[in-house]
Amino acid sequence: MLGARRLLGALRLCSSVSCPRPRASAKMRVRDALRVQDASGECVTVQGWIRSVRSQKEVLFLHVNDGSSLESLQIVADSSLDSRELTFGSSVQVQGQLVKSQSKRQNVELKAEKIEVIGDCEAKAFPIKYKERHPLEYLRQYPHLRCRTNALGSILRVRSEATAAIHSYFKDNGFVHIHTPVLTSNDCEGAGELFQVEPSSKIKGPEESFFDVPAFLTVSGQLHLEVMSGAFTQVFTFGPTFRAENSQSRRHLAEFYMVEAEISFVESLQDLMQVMEELFKATTEMVLSHCPEDVELCHQFIAAGQKGRLEHMLKNNFLIISYTEAIEILKQASQNFAFTPKWGVDLQTEHEKYLVRHCGNIPVFVINYPSELKPFYMRENEDGPQNTEVA
Amino acid sequence: MLGARRLLGALRLCSSVSCPRPRASAKMRVRDALRVQDASGECVTVQGWIRSVRSQKEVLFLHVNDGSSLESLQIVADSSLDSRELTFGSSVQVQGQLVKSQSKRQNVELKAEKIEVIGDCEAKAFPIKYKERHPLEYLRQYPHLRCRTNALGSILRVRSEATAAIHSYFKDNGFVHIHTPVLTSNDCEGAGELFQVEPSSKIKGPEESFFDVPAFLTVSGQLHLEVMSGAFTQVFTFGPTFRAENSQSRRHLAEFYMVEAEISFVESLQDLMQVMEELFKATTEMVLSHCPEDVELCHQFIAAGQKGRLEHMLKNNFLIISYTEAIEILKQASQNFAFTPKWGVDLQTEHEKYLVRHCGNIPVFVINYPSELKPFYMRENEDGPQNTEVA
Repeated sequence: MLGARRLLGALRLCSSVSCPRPRASAKMRVRDALRVQDASGECVTVQGWIRSVRSQKEVLFLHVNDGSSLESLQIVADSSLDSRELTFGSSVQVQGQLVKSQSKRQNVELKAEKIEVIGDCEAKAFPIKYKERHPLEYLRQYPHLRCRTNALGSILRVRSEATAAIHSYFKDNGFVHIHTPVLTSNDCEGAGELFQVEPSSKIKGPEESFFDVPAFLTVSGQLHLEVMSGAFTQVFTFGPTFRAENSQSRRHLAEFYMVEAEISFVESLQDLMQVMEELFKATTEMVLSHCPEDVELCHQFIAAGQKGRLEHMLKNNFLIISYTEAIEILKQASQNFAFTPKWGVDLQTEHEKYLVRHCGNIPVFVINYPSELKPFYMRENEDGPQNTEVA
Repeated sequence: MLGARRLLGALRLCSSVSCPRPRASAKMRVRDALRVQDASGECVTVQGWIRSVRSQKEVLFLHVNDGSSLESLQIVADSSLDSRELTFGSSVQVQGQLVKSQSKRQNVELKAEKIEVIGDCEAKAFPIKYKERHPLEYLRQYPHLRCRTNALGSILRVRSEATAAIHSYFKDNGFVHIHTPVLTSNDCEGAGELFQVEPSSKIKGPEESFFDVPAFLTVSGQLHLEVMSGAFTQVFTFGPTFRAENSQSRRHLAEFYMVEAEISFVESLQDLMQVMEELFKATTEMVLSHCPEDVELCHQFIAAGQKGRLEHMLKNNFLIISYTEAIEILKQASQNFAFTPKWGVDLQTEHEKYLVRHCGNIPVFVINYPSELKPFYMRENEDGPQNTEVA
């Protein structure tokens, strides 16, 4: 299903300069316009939302963003233009000539010939304010508008790019993509945290189930993928997964997307970890090269130092330690943990974070867990379960 | 999360010919092996499932499939090999030399040096039988094994390829991918057919909802995408959607995947239909070029004539007719419909099928519906709703 929105309230403003070439003006995304190397007056049309308005002598400077990049395109217009509706947040269509910019801040700018306000925006009523950096908690109140901020726009572009990179990695490496079911009668990792599903008319009623058996939202596509790995040597899925845990931590969401893959005929755990490392690195490289400005924004204003950490990760091989080694490292740590590390007990987030720091901020695989800490479907090592406490 | 399965029960069989080159044998997918043009004895290892076994004089012929293509790779082995475990359905690892085949039926074959049975398969217990074409109804009983048949394998490969093509089309055309939520408090297209969600412990109990409001499974990401189209001029989603209709027809599934896109600043419905047509064609072209054998199988055994219909569709421009024209065409049809076509009443599947046949088996857009047949969020034409019956 495809839909379209044309924001209403069009108002045509005066056209002060006429385009030297009478041919139709080509629609161009801001991202593409910004990349034109030797702009020489191409007639283009750009559509987007005003991010800033500045009047200077005879000239009006606008910045227009269309979501295709963090950077906006500078529009230069004659100040005789009626600018009352050219406000922050308004949606506009600008036709003009793409020219080399006089300023060093950008390569190109658009010399406007016609500016059309498609949808106006009243500054007082608009919760996002010009030049203000709004805290994320404030933006939570405006799920329908927050995607217009730099931070959320960047995160959504990065997520889109990472999603595409994950699909590409698996496709390029011969994996078959499987849509494992969201509705399932399976439990995968232990009961008590599943969402169950019934038609809304029956949910609290005494009627029989809609399906023949109780239906849950998937917590993992793994068991379905394992079935597929009996016919395809390499399969993956990348879909929504659900947990009904009433936890407000950063690690627990009711709904999240998960990448899962199965490889048949794998010889060793090392081969598998190699795939995971390559997937991580390929995805990170794609995001760094396709969204450099978005990563920079995150690096500077959201997660300080993030870019350096990513580049450090790319340059180094991931590490592998055993569960027993991990416990030893944690026992010798000078840090006080909320949960005392102990052989036979699962690792906590604080432990995992410490291990990564201990390993020089390189991702680290922890292998050879005691079998009782892992679900039934995990493969046991050939030396059998190791249940004895290590001194 | 990544997992691996190595099918157990390994048995090493005798190695009768030694590889002339001592270097490690490279793992190769069957699809890639079949494409080697001038095979000249490369040492390779192939892993997969036996699709046929034939003994002839001194030679044993096996066909091994690994799901990477419909075609299997022919393995030629010395018949002195203990072949008791080389049965249909067994999983094997074969090392040998890739050579030009003597037969015209294939370009290459693998001259086996070592065959290892990774997992054996007892023909009597195995519900899929050698050389039998099982009806789909029969295969429904074996969801964990049916992916090993030609038909289901092909469908899954085509689905994987089509999924990748849809992602590529949107990415190449500058769309931002959005994961619209599966859990939502929205209804999109009218009540009464939604699945509602609660933790399994609460589903039939009197307790309060897990979420602050009743939570449903999405029937469409459209409203969420529309929000995003206020910040990004082109967005799409491709995720699972749900209907709680208790209908067993081919057109109604409880869970299905849907592609949805939103484009801001669209000038006309034509621009939108252009995107839909391009998406259809790009996806079809990708499937035809990447899975020609799978399409051929479908063409011959599943949906007779399918390939011709697809090629016909690719060669022609999609048609556009108005709802009023559609009703006129249906009224003049010699066919008897179960539902009599009538202006102001929605089109049925039988009507849509007739219209496509009437239009020469080319997809046809029906536009300008009476507004009361469409949901509230559809854009009204500028001439307002046309509610009067057309004579």
